[in-house]
Amino acid sequence: MEKRIKTDKMVLKELATGRKSTRKFSNTKIDISHVLYAIESALQAPSGSNKQPWKFVLIDEPQLKAKIRGAAESGERVFYESLEGEKKGWYQSRGLSWNKPFFDEAPLLIVIFGDSLAPNYKASIWLMIGYLLLALEERGLNSLTYTPSDPKKISSVLEPPTNYVLEAIIPIGYSAEIEKPKQSRKSLYDTIFINEWGNL
Amino acid sequence: MEKRIKTDKMVLKELATGRKSTRKFSNTKIDISHVLYAIESALQAPSGSNKQPWKFVLIDEPQLKAKIRGAAESGERVFYESLEGEKKGWYQSRGLSWNKPFFDEAPLLIVIFGDSLAPNYKASIWLMIGYLLLALEERGLNSLTYTPSDPKKISSVLEPPTNYVLEAIIPIGYSAEIEKPKQSRKSLYDTIFINEWGNL
Repeated sequence: MEKRIKTDKMVLKELATGRKSTRKFSNTKIDISHVLYAIESALQAPSGSNKQPWKFVLIDEPQLKAKIRGAAESGERVFYESLEGEKKGWYQSRGLSWNKPFFDEAPLLIVIFGDSLAPNYKASIWLMIGYLLLALEERGLNSLTYTPSDPKKISSVLEPPTNYVLEAIIPIGYSAEIEKPKQSRKSLYDTIFINEWGNL
Repeated sequence: MEKRIKTDKMVLKELATGRKSTRKFSNTKIDISHVLYAIESALQAPSGSNKQPWKFVLIDEPQLKAKIRGAAESGERVFYESLEGEKKGWYQSRGLSWNKPFFDEAPLLIVIFGDSLAPNYKASIWLMIGYLLLALEERGLNSLTYTPSDPKKISSVLEPPTNYVLEAIIPIGYSAEIEKPKQSRKSLYDTIFINEWGNL
């Protein structure tokens, strides 16, 4: 049962290349059907033993968003205070700090939890997030992949069962950023080896 | 700078839904340009501090594939011998065992390494693999996401620098499996909550 080449189109590459992380969102509302489309696409991802170890908490309630922001920033303060030298410079040069207004500004937050009892749950969750980001991009929605410095602090706001670990928060909306180029990416030449480590 | 809705098409969902894991590959050769397209797409993924902590070792040399298979199966034997009860039944019912002929049969293996010195490298690697799988699907190539039971054993065949961790092996080719339905997936109703844990 061989599959034929379906297409020489480059929809996937176009979506992948077009997507940029967004940290500043406008107050334009979003059509939830696009978000459900993206999650439905992501639910098709493979996972360890097909356990599909994911839960999505959609948050649009302003007071709850503010609580999530407070918990996240409290973890970020500790992280940013710990930074030194080159690493500190990297964050500063990008204007990043503990301050995370996007939690309030984005019309929707998707909080993603992984079931730590499932085999390879972390790998499964993040592969699925790859699907999710591309599906959001296809529908023209901007997003950020936020990985908390202190997931437990934020998680406690939502009180999941103890086996569920907060892996990521994806703020979603429309960008209010001034158009800027995508951060640079490595090329095939920098990343591929053939039949042995380091031959290129 | 708001983005417009680009499309109501469902290319992403179609790709996501169409992709099934393949464990039996035909001996049909593959056009490497499709694989490079998929990796180029995956290289566009976001990563922790944009470190892009990935290396891809492409393996098509039969003797090297056999070595990888040997190392993988040696780890799998230990894993399968450890299985008990319900978990053992799950693997048996799917005809899975320590025996992994796909390492020899697939015309190409992509061995994916993550730089453990990069922040959130594991999350970054697996998000990128989500991009990779969808791009392979777009080009009609079948794949499997193989997560080794004993990554170090396989890694030692390729001798990467010590900070590089083997995260996954993706065998690629055309399926020789008899057409079978995709394993079931959970629905939105099973996975989404709104503004609190457990309200659906």
